[in-house]
Amino acid sequence: MNPPEDLINILKKEDNFLILTHSTPDGDALGSCLALKFFLEKLNKKVEIFAEKPIPLQYRFLPGIDYIKDLKEITLKNLNVLILVDCNKIKRVSYEREILKKIESFNGKTFVIDHHIIDDQDDNRSIKWIDPQKAATGILIYNLIKSMKGKITEEIAVNLYTAIIVDTGNFQFDNTTEEVFSIATELVKAGAKPSYIYQQCFESWRENRFKLFIRMLNNLEILPPLALSYISKSDFQDTNTKESDTERFVEFLRILNDINLTVLFREIETDLIKVSLRSKGDIDVSLIAREFGGGGHKNAAGYRTKGSLKYSRNQLIKKLKKYNLL
Amino acid sequence: MNPPEDLINILKKEDNFLILTHSTPDGDALGSCLALKFFLEKLNKKVEIFAEKPIPLQYRFLPGIDYIKDLKEITLKNLNVLILVDCNKIKRVSYEREILKKIESFNGKTFVIDHHIIDDQDDNRSIKWIDPQKAATGILIYNLIKSMKGKITEEIAVNLYTAIIVDTGNFQFDNTTEEVFSIATELVKAGAKPSYIYQQCFESWRENRFKLFIRMLNNLEILPPLALSYISKSDFQDTNTKESDTERFVEFLRILNDINLTVLFREIETDLIKVSLRSKGDIDVSLIAREFGGGGHKNAAGYRTKGSLKYSRNQLIKKLKKYNLL
Repeated sequence: MNPPEDLINILKKEDNFLILTHSTPDGDALGSCLALKFFLEKLNKKVEIFAEKPIPLQYRFLPGIDYIKDLKEITLKNLNVLILVDCNKIKRVSYEREILKKIESFNGKTFVIDHHIIDDQDDNRSIKWIDPQKAATGILIYNLIKSMKGKITEEIAVNLYTAIIVDTGNFQFDNTTEEVFSIATELVKAGAKPSYIYQQCFESWRENRFKLFIRMLNNLEILPPLALSYISKSDFQDTNTKESDTERFVEFLRILNDINLTVLFREIETDLIKVSLRSKGDIDVSLIAREFGGGGHKNAAGYRTKGSLKYSRNQLIKKLKKYNLL
Repeated sequence: MNPPEDLINILKKEDNFLILTHSTPDGDALGSCLALKFFLEKLNKKVEIFAEKPIPLQYRFLPGIDYIKDLKEITLKNLNVLILVDCNKIKRVSYEREILKKIESFNGKTFVIDHHIIDDQDDNRSIKWIDPQKAATGILIYNLIKSMKGKITEEIAVNLYTAIIVDTGNFQFDNTTEEVFSIATELVKAGAKPSYIYQQCFESWRENRFKLFIRMLNNLEILPPLALSYISKSDFQDTNTKESDTERFVEFLRILNDINLTVLFREIETDLIKVSLRSKGDIDVSLIAREFGGGGHKNAAGYRTKGSLKYSRNQLIKKLKKYNLL
């Protein structure tokens, strides 16, 4: 799917862009925003990015990361166009009402560039370029730059390579296509260093994160084809870790044979549980996540729910049985 | 480095080939042997592969795997040419004297196709095509097939893709170059399915292997920049696992920040320790392994040593200090 003409025209015509992404931004979100920013700046545009801080440690190496401002300080002045990147609705930008209200007050042109499945059409004001067939929003940004005859600089290459490896689990998920490898080839040619970027994104665990990981393994419950585990509030406290330290934990459980559905429950506040689901093959976990008000992709989705860890576990098991997944 | 003319001429001229690889064959060894076999058979050659059995569970999905015969039953009759693949000397084919003696009795033409650093020139009889710059022997086989205008069939693509991901840690090691991605692109185009092959190679752990993994984590010792762990004979016995179940364990420890050297000691028999070393960046662990009579690559090497787990740990620490690595 090519970038919409409307989007290309606006990028050429307008001068002041604001880029936003989803709450708790990951490597695809941050890398895509930054690559778009570097590209627009080459066209002599003014660009600002606001995102939730702090930026997770593993993404602080990204070229341009210091240009990203704290979402709490968002301003909309001198702004022609708002672009949501790796995010298809304003309400996913933040869980804070005040921030959302401010963003929603913007009445200029809004674009969406994303690869997440859209669950409803409640936001009709924005022009959407959404392609759930693509492994990462970074691939849409790459295609946009190529469509507009832009150059893939080293800064752009590193950001887009990061976007791709984070959303394909470093070339391991079902979304790893011929196109993904073909783009990776060009990004490496343009200066992205695979082992360095891999180390930054995936091999920079502090020792306390490692301890949290061992706790998760000890909390593991195997009910083939499901493997599930949890991290309690006290697990976080005892190891001096936080939610962002659990990135990739749920993916790790995929390593088990005969398991095609993995789930991690995290007690991020008392009685507030964040649930991540991963699947192999045809199992569509985004359907499950949407039943609980969440979202995501076929093989990677999530939601938040109220109640205890035990309650949320039982609630999910019931739903999986309803879908004949258990 | 292009394939030697001698090798290409012999492959065209001769009719009966025997392919062998190193002891405890991994995905690069098996995938490269099988890809070469499928290619030669298209040229109407007779080909036999002998390797150590049993084939590790994770490689049993490889197209053609059932054609591989048990090394114990090796015969050299009707044979024109011996090709060592992913292995640069006959003595690495087996640790069993009787088998080695039989192979060494062969006095026809011998070729080596490999990417391991060669540590001496004791075997001058064979014609060697060794390129340590290449991430996997599978890349040499790919280049050989392309040089000879062969077709990359789906069977060949799956075998070579496996060879590449096993030796690059699925595109994470320093050896992951633009060429690696460019070849991966073509292999996927030819029918290799990345997520399926990844799952077979890396995500088919049985539950008892997982239990062994947790034991290794509990045995972990962190002495930055070194992380080391061990698996005792009783760890294997208690979890009903064996040495081949530890594949990728040592790589996992790379995940720790500030760690650029990881080591795993395995007590495979009483007082016989197998040691695997992995490094990041410029640290050359093959130098260390060679000091103990082993071998490998800059970032991945190994050796065997006699004595207790504790003795071998202290022996290595002493050597690392000598090399100023600790």
